This record gives sequence, structure tokens and C-alpha cells, in this order.
Amino acid sequence: MRDIFEAELAQLGQDLVAMSGRVEQAISSAGIALLTADLQLAESVIADDLAIDALERDLDDRCVRLLAQQQPVATDLRVVVSALRMSASLERMGDLARHVAQVTRARYPVVAVPTGLEATFTQMQDAAVRVARRVTTLLGTRDMALAESIQQDDDLLDELHASTFGAMLAGPWDRSVQETVDVTLLGRYYERFGDHGVSVARRMVYLVTGDVHDALGPVPARSA
Amino acid sequence: MRDIFEAELAQLGQDLVAMSGRVEQAISSAGIALLTADLQLAESVIADDLAIDALERDLDDRCVRLLAQQQPVATDLRVVVSALRMSASLERMGDLARHVAQVTRARYPVVAVPTGLEATFTQMQDAAVRVARRVTTLLGTRDMALAESIQQDDDLLDELHASTFGAMLAGPWDRSVQETVDVTLLGRYYERFGDHGVSVARRMVYLVTGDVHDALGPVPARSA
Repeated sequence: MRDIFEAELAQLGQDLVAMSGRVEQAISSAGIALLTADLQLAESVIADDLAIDALERDLDDRCVRLLAQQQPVATDLRVVVSALRMSASLERMGDLARHVAQVTRARYPVVAVPTGLEATFTQMQDAAVRVARRVTTLLGTRDMALAESIQQDDDLLDELHASTFGAMLAGPWDRSVQETVDVTLLGRYYERFGDHGVSVARRMVYLVTGDVHDALGPVPARSA
Repeated sequence: MRDIFEAELAQLGQDLVAMSGRVEQAISSAGIALLTADLQLAESVIADDLAIDALERDLDDRCVRLLAQQQPVATDLRVVVSALRMSASLERMGDLARHVAQVTRARYPVVAVPTGLEATFTQMQDAAVRVARRVTTLLGTRDMALAESIQQDDDLLDELHASTFGAMLAGPWDRSVQETVDVTLLGRYYERFGDHGVSVARRMVYLVTGDVHDALGPVPARSA
């Protein structure tokens, strides 16, 4: 009985890693599609999000079944409840990749990112992909050093997000209303990738060390 | 033992209702502050969000303790797992109220909603408050008719959100970049109130009837 349970817990961990890999792929593709106005790639991200949603449902159903059948306690219970929560964060990251792809599709064949902000959004994209990749590795290896890197990229995403407001509000900004709307929404989506990545990282740190504050410092003040 | 468990489950339900009431209050105050540029009220919403976050943590800790100590199965297990998920949605609604209040504070003493869009945002605010109020009542009474009303207000919020894009992109729009950014963000926050309300309603319907599709129809196609 215990052996079966151990195997099921291990499977749960592997499924989270696989789901995170899918999310990482979605973010990577969504960003490439955004920066190159690749309609076909954007469409594939939008279609694939249904698969990510299905992975979340499967994973959640399995968690509830494990709770019912195995009635885990202590660390095992923490693992199952954490999996429920982390899958929700990963699913939201998939939704955000879909949102980025939807903006790309709506502006096609024009590149949705206005001239002059390509470098900023390329940096945001790189940071978001690093966050997702490190989340995948963290889930697989429990290497706690990754949690700190994820936090740093979240800080970077916050800075880059703030710089998009700076570009629109402080500098000369003669772009269309549509471009202003798109930059506002895209910036928000990228900023949220970081938040969700940090959320998964915090849950992993808590799972492994029992204390979120040791590894990532106090919960930071939150921005709009 | 069973009596204690029943009492703990009932308490969990009451705490969710109380949390939802706090969120309803936050949304109501955030909207009044937004539409009247009431700095003091906006500050109180921002400060109170910490209390809503604390309610979520307490509720979640209690759910995990219940799972560990009582090892519920069947319906009881569904109740506890649903509470975990509904508290997360309520917490996000509280965050969104805080975001609205933060925009209000940043624009003070100017009203953040541009002239000409007051009626639209008043309608969005009214719909968001109705959603939150009905979620509170649904959690307390399990009156399934409310789930459908929540869904209708979510549809209304989507329409009103779309109409803000129409105002900015189709009509004459000579507003500042800051106003364009604010309308884009505020519209998104209000649209998300509806999504989270529907998410709680779906979980309640599932909890009571075992089938989300009977009461609210198929899961709708999602928008950006």
C-alpha cells in the first residue's frame, strides 16, 4: 500500500514537471510569435492552452483521489496540497501565454510591440522564459538556489514593466491608442508571469524547508 | 468525533461567507473611491487587503489541518478542497479591489475615470458588487439560482469591458496616454471580478449538484 502511494506521489511530481514544461514551451512560443508577428505560432499557443487546462484538471482530480484513498498526513499531505496549488499557478501562466498570443493574432500582420519597445519586450520575454524554465527544473530537482533566481527575474520583470509606463508617459510617445492599449496589457501579462513563478517557487521552498522566509526573504510589498 | 468535524466544516463555511463579505465591502469601497476620487477610502481598501490575505491563510491552514486530522472522504473531502480553491478566488478579488484603489490613489485628486466613461464604469462597479454580494449569499445559502445571476453579470462585465475598447479605439478619443492606460487597466480589473465570481459559483454548483454543466451551461470560450 505504501509502495503504491509512494509511486503515485512520484508520478504527481513528474506530472507537475511535465505540465511546467508545457507552460515553458507556451511562453517561449507566445513571445516568439509576438516579436515576429507569427500568426501560425500564435494560433498553436492558443490551441495548446486547452491541453494545459486539461493537464491541470487531471492533476487536480488525481490529488483529490489521493487525498480520499490514501488519507496522507504530515509531509505527504503537504506534497498533495502543494501540487493542487502549484498546478493552479501553472495553469494561469498558460492562460497568460494565450493572452499574449491573442494580442499577436489580433494585430497580425503588424507586430503588436511598437517600434522602440522591442528591446524591452525581448528582455521581458527572456526573463519570463527563464522563470518558467527554472520553475520546471525546481519542480524536478528541488534545487533551492533556483528559487532565488526566479525571484530576481520577477524583480527584473517588475522593473521592465515600470519602464514601459515610463516610455509611454514620460518620453515623447506619438503612438496610436491601440498601441498604448496593447503595451499596457502585454506589460501586465509579462509582469504576472513573474508573480506566478515566484508563487510556485515559494510553495516549493515551503515544501522542502518548511519556511518560506529563509530562502526568499520576507514577502515583498506588492505592486499594482 | 463526528460532531466536532461537522462543527469544523460548518465553521469553514461561515468563514468563507465572512471572507466573501469582506471582499464585497472592498469592491464596493474601491468603486466608490474610484468614481469620487476619495483618497481616504482608497487607502482603507489598500490597508484592508492585508486582512483579506490573512483570512485566506487562516482558512487554508484550517483546511489542511482538517485534511490531516479528520481525513475526510466523499462529500466532506469535496467541501474542504472546494473551500481551499474558493478562498483563493476570493483573495484574488480582494487583490483586484486593491488594484482599483491603487489607481485611484495614483491619480488623486483627479478622478481616474475619464469624462464620458463614468456611466460605463458605474455599471461595471454595480455589476462587480452584485457578483460579490451574490457570491456571499450563494456561499451561505447554496441557492443555485444565484449562480446563474452571477454568470449573467459576468457576461455584462465582458460587454462593458469590450465597450471601453470601443470608446478608446472607434470613437473620437482625445484623452491623454495616462487616461488610456488607466481605462485599459481598470477595465481589465473589472472584467476579472466577473471571472473569479463565476469560478466560485461553478465550484459551489459542483459541490452541491456534482455537475457544473447542468446549472451554468458549458464552460464558455474564454476571452483575452
